[in-house]
Amino acid sequence: MESKKFLLQERDIPEKWYNVLPDMPVKPRPILNPATKKPLSAEDLYPLFAEELARQELNDTDRWIEIPEEVRDMYKIWRPTPLVRARGLEKMLDTPAHIYFKNESVSPVGSHKLNSAIAQAYYCKKQGVTNITTETGAGQWGAALSLAAKHFGLELAVYMVKVSYHQKPYRRSIMQTYGAQVIASPSMSTKAGRRILTDTPNYQGSLGTAISEAVELAMSTPNCKYTLGSVLNHVSLHQTVIGLEAEKQMEMAGEYPDVVIGCFGGGSNFSGISFPFIRHNFSGEHSARFIAAEPASCPKLTRGVFQYDFGDEAGYTPLIPMLTLGHNFSPANIHAGGLRYHGAGSIVSQLKQDGLIEAVDIPQLETFKAATMFARGEGIIPAPESSHAIAATIREALKAKEEGRAKTILFNLSGHGLIDMAAYDSYIAGDLSNYEVTDEDVARNTESLERII
Amino acid sequence: MESKKFLLQERDIPEKWYNVLPDMPVKPRPILNPATKKPLSAEDLYPLFAEELARQELNDTDRWIEIPEEVRDMYKIWRPTPLVRARGLEKMLDTPAHIYFKNESVSPVGSHKLNSAIAQAYYCKKQGVTNITTETGAGQWGAALSLAAKHFGLELAVYMVKVSYHQKPYRRSIMQTYGAQVIASPSMSTKAGRRILTDTPNYQGSLGTAISEAVELAMSTPNCKYTLGSVLNHVSLHQTVIGLEAEKQMEMAGEYPDVVIGCFGGGSNFSGISFPFIRHNFSGEHSARFIAAEPASCPKLTRGVFQYDFGDEAGYTPLIPMLTLGHNFSPANIHAGGLRYHGAGSIVSQLKQDGLIEAVDIPQLETFKAATMFARGEGIIPAPESSHAIAATIREALKAKEEGRAKTILFNLSGHGLIDMAAYDSYIAGDLSNYEVTDEDVARNTESLERII
Repeated sequence: MESKKFLLQERDIPEKWYNVLPDMPVKPRPILNPATKKPLSAEDLYPLFAEELARQELNDTDRWIEIPEEVRDMYKIWRPTPLVRARGLEKMLDTPAHIYFKNESVSPVGSHKLNSAIAQAYYCKKQGVTNITTETGAGQWGAALSLAAKHFGLELAVYMVKVSYHQKPYRRSIMQTYGAQVIASPSMSTKAGRRILTDTPNYQGSLGTAISEAVELAMSTPNCKYTLGSVLNHVSLHQTVIGLEAEKQMEMAGEYPDVVIGCFGGGSNFSGISFPFIRHNFSGEHSARFIAAEPASCPKLTRGVFQYDFGDEAGYTPLIPMLTLGHNFSPANIHAGGLRYHGAGSIVSQLKQDGLIEAVDIPQLETFKAATMFARGEGIIPAPESSHAIAATIREALKAKEEGRAKTILFNLSGHGLIDMAAYDSYIAGDLSNYEVTDEDVARNTESLERII
Repeated sequence: MESKKFLLQERDIPEKWYNVLPDMPVKPRPILNPATKKPLSAEDLYPLFAEELARQELNDTDRWIEIPEEVRDMYKIWRPTPLVRARGLEKMLDTPAHIYFKNESVSPVGSHKLNSAIAQAYYCKKQGVTNITTETGAGQWGAALSLAAKHFGLELAVYMVKVSYHQKPYRRSIMQTYGAQVIASPSMSTKAGRRILTDTPNYQGSLGTAISEAVELAMSTPNCKYTLGSVLNHVSLHQTVIGLEAEKQMEMAGEYPDVVIGCFGGGSNFSGISFPFIRHNFSGEHSARFIAAEPASCPKLTRGVFQYDFGDEAGYTPLIPMLTLGHNFSPANIHAGGLRYHGAGSIVSQLKQDGLIEAVDIPQLETFKAATMFARGEGIIPAPESSHAIAATIREALKAKEEGRAKTILFNLSGHGLIDMAAYDSYIAGDLSNYEVTDEDVARNTESLERII
């Protein structure tokens, strides 16, 4: 508890997002039209996304993109967020490592998701859009977008993965309190949902399925756009405010990270904390390691294949070059609902293929053990998703102890777990399990995918 | 959402608590031994409380009391907290009033309670105490003390009011995750609990009953002290860090409050935000108004009697001079569990008697309406307790609008409501009610009390 915070002022909130694409040694392959297999232009994406977001998605030339004043004003509700030296955790681990975390849990919805929600709602509003749709897993993204949509006066429909809808009723209530419509997915309100419910009546949903429903509703509703909380380049772009602030704060602490760690679902928070630091690897100034921590039950980075795949279950989206378990992969019902996604965004997939970042997969029980230790050492009960980053951090800190050498570790605490206490109850009661993914599961779900040459 | 935060640095965390007792024009009457009716000395309180806390309780000479370094270090986990100009709410109300709130919800347990929990656990530990007990209503205090106890290596047993134990299971889980024992009160583990359960098997509990159980357990356990989250002078003392920080932040904003508002259960957060400002009323420098916002279903300040009463249901505590509804008063099962207490602390009671502070009582539905408006305007979902302060703020802001004159309002957002979403669900579903307290209820419960004169 002798934690030490490094605090910035509102004037230190970044004025620009960092776009990693221009700096990448090898850029990701283009996203493709599934019918023609031709690369898509920004204009091709306009029917689905706000135009400015479509342009950001494909922008591989502008390194810095200005944050609109209206977005930055809203960031001021909770940003800048603290950087904390985790002395309590260090002491519990008796490690020579210095552990820092960026505390994104202080946002009013309890996670980093608001960074992109505000930007996406803003660009939709600016363009005159009146309705938006989205999907949400654990509800972190849905809660964030509900708040952003209310602020900018947009009507919002959220498809919430059914297992989370029941596991995390409080996040549903939060969205409703902000004024959003929330539908458990799969639902009978879309063709995609009806097909799945007919085939598999008890299916508890996945992010891939919820995306299909949200896309279908957006495409069939007048003046309506679809928004996504992870995976896409423009989402990673908006999340770089995390790493840009952390960079200044690490300077205040007089250290530079040897290792940067984030949990991994589709990539939004990992990208946010990592990209501003990895640019100094690209320039040769530093040689930090970057570790994405994913669930052992949904191990796209460590065990997926690198192929073109759909972003959703029904195959409505463009084809994306990704490390994937296959868009029909059905992840186990772990409590880290935000990490139950079959694929990784194209930038992170490319970086992983090129050996520029690492990944670890972590069993559910190890994440809750790490979370409980962190709660007792640092006072903050972490989200089950973020607990994957904590578990990976603990592994690195213990390795430093074995090797008897100091090491500076920075991880992103993407959110708090105060709304996930039912999961902690199950853990305390001994009711949680680990889940295995077999090589056959992966092979079966990926065999029909488009090869990446 | 164009809120503007006023942020301090860690060095601005107060180094001393402000003790209002020496400055009061009329000091509260002494607390009494119920058997002898003689005033109690600090030594008389040593069996129940840590010695330093007992001394603080009766200290009416030292205006400033040093905050120990270990306590201040732990405050750094989340303090200083932001002061926010609530421009979103102002706009929704179309009021000329300037509304500011001190955001105590950013603590890792989501409320201001940690300010005193850390101090109390510290003084217990320093004295060599190994076990502590307490009660909790909504669970805010219990969660805070669980974290503090774990940090200082104390065993903790928490009696949680039964209605909250079931309404707010997540707060129970939070306490357990931090390592505390949690027992629904009334329970069969104490004489006081067994007596009530025998008389009224379905009784859903009250803070008064839970205090009786916690006191009884402390008195019958070796090396064990009792701790309390509100009502007492030393709790108000610790909470003054809220107002002391807010004072600096209002200076940064270039304003001084005309009105200071806090919700009111036993007094901890109202005292914390008010006392540092009321001292400038005592000195004649300012003439702010101070408004305590209590539930209409538990209206001790607006409709209670000013008499000596017990702090608990069974009559284990000293006699306290208070505005009270009677220690056997059984409040309705409103969702603001932290405000379901029969009496006000002796300092606030005296200030109210002397016309130096005001009080308003607010029906449950008005508080949820105010809370929803605040959530949509400012992004933060408030605790049902804090929503009483918001409702009182809205009344004042609308009055300013009617009168067509500017006014600066400061209120304390004592906590967030992310763990109270079941209450919001009920509100959205139209299932919540207001509750009436009749004059007969009050008369029946207070007729046997000790007269103060």
